[in-house]
Amino acid sequence: MAYYQSSPIAGRHFLQIPGPTNVPDRVLRAMDNPTMDHRGPDFGRFGAQLLEKLRTVFKTEGPVVIYPASGTGAWEAALVNTLSPGDRVLMCETGWFATLWQEMAERLQLRPEFIPTDWRRGADAPAIEAALREDRSHGIKAVCVVHNETSTGCTSRIEEVRRAIDAAGHPALLLVDTISSLGSIDYRHDEWGVDVTVAGSQKGLMLPPGLSFNAVSEKALKATETAKLPRSFWDWHPMLKANETGYFPYTPATNLLYGLDAAVDMLNEEGLDNVFARHDRFAEATRRAVRHWGLEIQCEEPRHYSSSLTAVRLPEGHSANALRAVILERFNMSLGNGLGRLNDRVFRIGHLGDFGPLSLIGTLGGVEMGLGAAGVPHKPGGVQAAMAYLNGNA
Amino acid sequence: MAYYQSSPIAGRHFLQIPGPTNVPDRVLRAMDNPTMDHRGPDFGRFGAQLLEKLRTVFKTEGPVVIYPASGTGAWEAALVNTLSPGDRVLMCETGWFATLWQEMAERLQLRPEFIPTDWRRGADAPAIEAALREDRSHGIKAVCVVHNETSTGCTSRIEEVRRAIDAAGHPALLLVDTISSLGSIDYRHDEWGVDVTVAGSQKGLMLPPGLSFNAVSEKALKATETAKLPRSFWDWHPMLKANETGYFPYTPATNLLYGLDAAVDMLNEEGLDNVFARHDRFAEATRRAVRHWGLEIQCEEPRHYSSSLTAVRLPEGHSANALRAVILERFNMSLGNGLGRLNDRVFRIGHLGDFGPLSLIGTLGGVEMGLGAAGVPHKPGGVQAAMAYLNGNA
Amino acid sequence: MAYYQSSPIAGRHFLQIPGPTNVPDRVLRAMDNPTMDHRGPDFGRFGAQLLEKLRTVFKTEGPVVIYPASGTGAWEAALVNTLSPGDRVLMCETGWFATLWQEMAERLQLRPEFIPTDWRRGADAPAIEAALREDRSHGIKAVCVVHNETSTGCTSRIEEVRRAIDAAGHPALLLVDTISSLGSIDYRHDEWGVDVTVAGSQKGLMLPPGLSFNAVSEKALKATETAKLPRSFWDWHPMLKANETGYFPYTPATNLLYGLDAAVDMLNEEGLDNVFARHDRFAEATRRAVRHWGLEIQCEEPRHYSSSLTAVRLPEGHSANALRAVILERFNMSLGNGLGRLNDRVFRIGHLGDFGPLSLIGTLGGVEMGLGAAGVPHKPGGVQAAMAYLNGNA
Amino acid sequence: MAYYQSSPIAGRHFLQIPGPTNVPDRVLRAMDNPTMDHRGPDFGRFGAQLLEKLRTVFKTEGPVVIYPASGTGAWEAALVNTLSPGDRVLMCETGWFATLWQEMAERLQLRPEFIPTDWRRGADAPAIEAALREDRSHGIKAVCVVHNETSTGCTSRIEEVRRAIDAAGHPALLLVDTISSLGSIDYRHDEWGVDVTVAGSQKGLMLPPGLSFNAVSEKALKATETAKLPRSFWDWHPMLKANETGYFPYTPATNLLYGLDAAVDMLNEEGLDNVFARHDRFAEATRRAVRHWGLEIQCEEPRHYSSSLTAVRLPEGHSANALRAVILERFNMSLGNGLGRLNDRVFRIGHLGDFGPLSLIGTLGGVEMGLGAAGVPHKPGGVQAAMAYLNGNA
Repeated sequence: MAYYQSSPIAGRHFLQIPGPTNVPDRVLRAMDNPTMDHRGPDFGRFGAQLLEKLRTVFKTEGPVVIYPASGTGAWEAALVNTLSPGDRVLMCETGWFATLWQEMAERLQLRPEFIPTDWRRGADAPAIEAALREDRSHGIKAVCVVHNETSTGCTSRIEEVRRAIDAAGHPALLLVDTISSLGSIDYRHDEWGVDVTVAGSQKGLMLPPGLSFNAVSEKALKATETAKLPRSFWDWHPMLKANETGYFPYTPATNLLYGLDAAVDMLNEEGLDNVFARHDRFAEATRRAVRHWGLEIQCEEPRHYSSSLTAVRLPEGHSANALRAVILERFNMSLGNGLGRLNDRVFRIGHLGDFGPLSLIGTLGGVEMGLGAAGVPHKPGGVQAAMAYLNGNA
Repeated sequence: MAYYQSSPIAGRHFLQIPGPTNVPDRVLRAMDNPTMDHRGPDFGRFGAQLLEKLRTVFKTEGPVVIYPASGTGAWEAALVNTLSPGDRVLMCETGWFATLWQEMAERLQLRPEFIPTDWRRGADAPAIEAALREDRSHGIKAVCVVHNETSTGCTSRIEEVRRAIDAAGHPALLLVDTISSLGSIDYRHDEWGVDVTVAGSQKGLMLPPGLSFNAVSEKALKATETAKLPRSFWDWHPMLKANETGYFPYTPATNLLYGLDAAVDMLNEEGLDNVFARHDRFAEATRRAVRHWGLEIQCEEPRHYSSSLTAVRLPEGHSANALRAVILERFNMSLGNGLGRLNDRVFRIGHLGDFGPLSLIGTLGGVEMGLGAAGVPHKPGGVQAAMAYLNGNA
Repeated sequence: MAYYQSSPIAGRHFLQIPGPTNVPDRVLRAMDNPTMDHRGPDFGRFGAQLLEKLRTVFKTEGPVVIYPASGTGAWEAALVNTLSPGDRVLMCETGWFATLWQEMAERLQLRPEFIPTDWRRGADAPAIEAALREDRSHGIKAVCVVHNETSTGCTSRIEEVRRAIDAAGHPALLLVDTISSLGSIDYRHDEWGVDVTVAGSQKGLMLPPGLSFNAVSEKALKATETAKLPRSFWDWHPMLKANETGYFPYTPATNLLYGLDAAVDMLNEEGLDNVFARHDRFAEATRRAVRHWGLEIQCEEPRHYSSSLTAVRLPEGHSANALRAVILERFNMSLGNGLGRLNDRVFRIGHLGDFGPLSLIGTLGGVEMGLGAAGVPHKPGGVQAAMAYLNGNA
Repeated sequence: MAYYQSSPIAGRHFLQIPGPTNVPDRVLRAMDNPTMDHRGPDFGRFGAQLLEKLRTVFKTEGPVVIYPASGTGAWEAALVNTLSPGDRVLMCETGWFATLWQEMAERLQLRPEFIPTDWRRGADAPAIEAALREDRSHGIKAVCVVHNETSTGCTSRIEEVRRAIDAAGHPALLLVDTISSLGSIDYRHDEWGVDVTVAGSQKGLMLPPGLSFNAVSEKALKATETAKLPRSFWDWHPMLKANETGYFPYTPATNLLYGLDAAVDMLNEEGLDNVFARHDRFAEATRRAVRHWGLEIQCEEPRHYSSSLTAVRLPEGHSANALRAVILERFNMSLGNGLGRLNDRVFRIGHLGDFGPLSLIGTLGGVEMGLGAAGVPHKPGGVQAAMAYLNGNA
C-alpha cells in the first residue's frame, strides 16, 4: 500500500507506466539511510567510485555529469552547455517527448528544425542525412534525437543516425535522449559517437525521479567554449572540476545517490547484456499478447519496436482513458496514458526496470481482464500467447 | 531483491508459500522504527489500544495474549495453560501440522487420541461427537482442531465441531489452531465457543514470523486453576495482569508489535468480510486453473476447500519438488513443498495475505509455465480460466 | 552507521554541519515508499494538499513552486523568471553563499552590484536604502538578500530591508534566500513583502537535498511578463498551471515529496513558533558555550546572530580544519568547514532541523573535547554553561 | 520521532534504558527486507553462515540455539533442557532478574536454593563453593548465575564462579544469563566452562527484542538425556538437527535474523575487544559523572561494576521515578526504573549497544539537567568530569 494510495484493492500496486518504474527494495533501503556530510572525506570516496562505475551504464570512458534534478533538466543542460542563442538544431518529431524537447529549444531561444514523423516509428536517418547535406554552411549545430520515444514505444536507431551524420560529413553535435532507454535497451555512448547523452533516474535505472545525467564527449566539452546560452546551475565545468575529487559544486541529492549506487550495482550484477535481453524478451511477449487480442501496436516499424514499453491503440470508438480507469479501479494497476495527439487513443504498457516474468504475466493479465471489463472488443488468450513465448513454446 | 536472495531473475520475488506471506510495505515500514521503552508511558498507551483492537480480528470480546514467539509456541501455550500431565486430548489428524501438534502433546506428557483422516479433508465432526459420547467419564479434557491445515489445504468447519461437542454434552475444552486462517478465512472465536484460539503473525496477519497469539475464553481461564503442566514463559496470568495497563510481564517484541498495529489497521480498513471474500474468490480462481490443467486438488471435499492455499497433486511419476525447483530457478517464485507423507507428491500455492488479483495471475502464470518447463502433463489455459472467473465471465 | 560511512566509532553519526541536517526517521520512512504514478488520480490529490499546506511554512497565501532540484537551482529560478540580460541587481555580500549567488547572476548575464560587508554581520539595510535612493532611474530591478548566511552565521533582518526599499520608494523586486533559515528562523513571505523566497529541502525542512522552492508574489509573477532571460525548466508558468490540479509539468521527485509531506506535518505539529523558539534557545546555549571557551563568534552583531548555526573563529595559529578532522575521527561528528576567505579560520556548528537538547549537549561536548584533543587553547566548561542556560539557571 | 511516541520535543529520542538499546539503522534496514521462504535453498545458505558466525560472539565452538522468542524464553529453555522436576539448583540473588529466574525455576517445579546478596554486588563465588562442598551427594544439578544483573549494574565474575565449582569438585552444570552483557562485556562461553549461556537480542546485540539464545556445551547436551521436564518448543534436539543444514524445525523469526546477521557483522567489524573496551570506557566516564554529582552508585564493589549500565541511588527523600519523569518530559530521554525493592530508589543509565561518545555526553547532560530540574541535590559538573576522562585528561 503506497503512500497516499487510495486503492481498496489489497496487495502491491502494479506501476506499469513506462516510468517511473517499480523501485526495488534494495534501492529504497539504500536511500533510507542518514544523509551524510557532502563535504566530508567519506563523501569524496563515495562520490569518486560512484562517478567511475556510472560510466559503465552509458558505455563511455568519458565523464558523466549527475544533476540533482529530474530528467527535463538534463535536456536543458545538454542544450545550454553546447549552444548559443539563435543556433539551428535539427530535431526529429518522434512523438510527444521529442516535441517537448523541441519546445524547450524554442524557449531557450534556439531555432529548431523539426523532421516530422507520424509518431509510429523512430527517427528518420535518411531524412537527417538529407537535411545535413543540404546545410552546406554548417549552420546546424546539433542533431537531437530521442532514443526511445516514451509516448509511442518507438526506438530510434542511433547508430544509423550516427552514420547519417558521418555520411553527410557534417560537424553537428549529436545529442541523444535516453531517458526511457538507458539501462533497458542497448546503448553505447562512445561507440556511437554521441556527444551528449541525456538520461534520468526513474526508468531503467530503477530509482525514484530526482536525478538526471549528461554523458559528455570531448567534442561536446569543446563546444562549451563557444556556447553562449547563459548557464550556471547546468554548467558542466564546475561539476567536472569538483567531480575530480568525488565532490559536487553544490549540494548533491545525497540519498538518491545512495540509491543510484545500489542500482548500478544491480545492473552490473545482472550484466547489462542480460538486462537488455530480458527487456527484449518481455517486449516481444507483450507484443504477442497485443496481437493475439487483435489490437494494434502504435509502432508500425518492427525495427523500431521499443523494448521498454509498448503503446497499444484502441479500436475506434473506444476510450483508452476509460480502459485505464477500469484497470486502475479493479486491478490496482497504473498504465501509461496517451500523450498529446494520442490522448485517449493509446495506452502504454511499461515493461522496463526491475521487473520479472511473473509481474509481466500479472500485467498482461490485468490488461486482458481490463479489456473485458471495459467492453473493448478483443480475443482472449493474449496472456496465454505471452506465456507460450516466454516458455519457449512459441 | 531480498536479503540473501540469490536469484539472478530481476524483479520482486513471488513468495507464494502458504506463509510467511508477502509483508506489505506499510507493515515493514512500521517495524522499521526505533525500538521504544517497553516500560515507559508511551508504550502503555500503545499496548492498550493494540490489545483492544486485536480482538476484532479474532471476533472475541475476551483477552488475546500476544507472545513474543513464533506460532509453535502458541500451540504449547494453549496446552500448558489448560492441561495436566496424563490428560487425554482428542486431536484430528488433518495433516502434517495436526500431527506436529499431536507429537507436541505427547512430548508434553499428555495422552492424545488421534482421529485419522486421509489428509484430503478437514476434521471429522461426527467422529469427534462419537468419541466424546463414548467418553462417559469425561476423561478427555480438550478437543484440538487445526482450522486450516496448511499441509493439505483443507479447512475444518469449526462451527460443526462445536455442535458435535455440544451434542455430546461433553465439557472438553475446544482448542483451535488458526495459524494459516486468521485474517484470511471467516473465523469467530466467541460465536463458535472456542476456548483457546492459537494464531501466528506470518500468514493472514501479513507480518514476519515472531509473534503468536492465544485468544482465551472464560472457561479456558478457569481451566488454568487445575492445570498442572509446568509453565512460566507461556503462563497467561502474568500476561493478562500486565496487559491490563498495556504492558507485558517481560520484554515484548516491540518492533513486531508496531507491524501488528499497522496490519490490524489494514485488515480493518479493508473490512474483515471483504478480506474473506477476496480470499474465497482467489481460491476459487486458483482451483479453476488447477482443474483446467487437469491436475488434482489435494482436498477432496469441496466444503473443506481452503481459501488461503491450494495443495495440488502431481501425476504419478512426476516430482513436485523438481517442479518447484524449476519454478524457483526460472520464474523466481517460491511455492510450498509437500510435507510429511505428501513430500514430493504435492506442491502448495499460497494465495493469502496482502495479495491482489494481478499477483494471483502472475502466480498462476508461473505455475503454468513451470508445468510446461518441467514436463508435467497438463492442458494449458488454466490462467485463462482463472481470469475468466475473476472477470465475472466464468 | 551511514551508507559508506567509514568511521570506526560506534553509534549514530552526529551530522552537525549547517545542512544537510539529520533527517528524522519519519521523513526517511515516508520516502521509503513505492514511487507512484505522477499522472494518476491519487497523485493529484496528494499534490494538491501538499502544495496547499506547504504555504504555511513560508507564511504566504500565494503559490510556492517546488522544483525537483537542489537549492542552487531555486536561486537560478528566482533570477531567470523575473529578470532580463543586462539587468542591474543589488546584492549584499554577507558571505560565501551571497557571493556564489552574485557569481551566478553574472554568469546569467545580469549586472550585480555588490554591497560589501566584513562577513561578520547581516545585510546593511541603510546601505541598501542609500543605493536605491541613488538609483533614480530605477535601473535596479531586484534586491537580493540571503536571509541566513550559512557561511558566517549572520541573519539579515528582512523586515528592515523591506522598510529600506519602501523608504526609498523603489520598485525593485525583493528576492530572499532562506535556504538555511526556512523552518528554523522566523520568516514571513507575505508580511515582509518578499517577491521571491528561495528555499531548499535539506536544512530546516529536515529532508535530504533534492527539492527546492520559490514562493512567488503577485509582483514577481507580473515581472515574468517582461523578463527576457531564457527559461524552460525553471519557468514558473507551466508549474503553476499544472499545480492547479495537483500535478507537475514534468516528472516530480515523488519520493522526496513524500518526505516533504511528512516534514511539513512535523513542523506544524510542533508549531512553527515553537520551532523558532527552540532554535533561538539552542543558538543562545551554543553561544554561551563558545564564549565560555573563550572563542570568538564570527557574527559580531548580536541582532544578526543566526539561530540555525554558529560560526566560531579559531585563535590565530590554529587550524579549524585540523580541529574538524580530529572531531570527525575521534567523536564521529561532522562540523561545517570555513568557506571562501574563512577557510580554516572558522568552523560552523549546525544546530538546526530535527534536533533536541541532548543532541545539542552531545554536539557541544564533542566540540569541547575536540578543542582539548586538538590542542586549541580554551577554557573548559562551555558545555556546563550551555546546560545551565538550557536548564533555566543561567 | 518513534512510532507512537508522544514527546513534543524535537529530535531523536534518547533510549538510555539498559535495553532494549538504540537499534542502529543498518540493523533496522536489514530487517526491513521482504520475508523469505524459510524452507527454500537461499534460507539454508543464509541460516548456515549465520549460525556459524554467531558463535564468535559467544566465544564458543559449540552450537548456539536461536529461539524466535524473547530472552525470558531462553531462561526457560536452559532449565527445561537440562533438568527434571524436583531438581535442586543453586542460584544467586544478585537482584531483580536473578529473582525472576529463581521464581521461574520454582514455577517449573525445580527446587532453587538462593544465595542472598544485598543487591549491591555480583554473585558470591566463595558462597557458591561452600554450598557445593556441602552438597556431598551432588543433589544440586545446576548453578545459575546472572552475569550482568540489569537491575543493579553489578557484574558477576563468571571465571571465579567456574573456579569455585571446580574447587568444590562438583559436577553441577553452570548456567549463565548474559542477556545484558553479551556483546558488551567480555564473556567466554568455552574458556569459562559454561554449560548453557542464555542471551537475548535487544541489548549488546543491538536488535529489537524477539530473539533469544542458548549456547550449549557438550555436558549440557548430555544432560538432556536424563532431563525430565516436559519440553517441546524449547527442545534443543530438533533445533540442532535442523540447524545442521541451516534450517529451523519451526518457522524462524526471519526478519529478526536478517537484523542479527547485520549486528554480528557490526560487532566483528569493530572487533569484540574494541567493543568491550568502549563499554568499559563509557562506564567509567559515567561513574565519574555520578561521583562528581555526589550521588551513590548502586554497585558497591568496584570489581563488579557493570560496563553496560550504571544504577544510581537517589538521596533519601527524593524519588527516582519523579526524576525520570522530568527527564522524559523535558529532555526526551528514557532511563531505566528501579525494579523490585529498588523501585523509586535508583534510576539506571544504559550505556550499551550502538552508542558513541557524544551520545554518552548527551545522556549524562540530560541526567545532570534533570537533577537540576527535579530539585535533586547534586554538584554540577559531572558531564565535565566525564569529558575530562574521555579526553584522557582525567
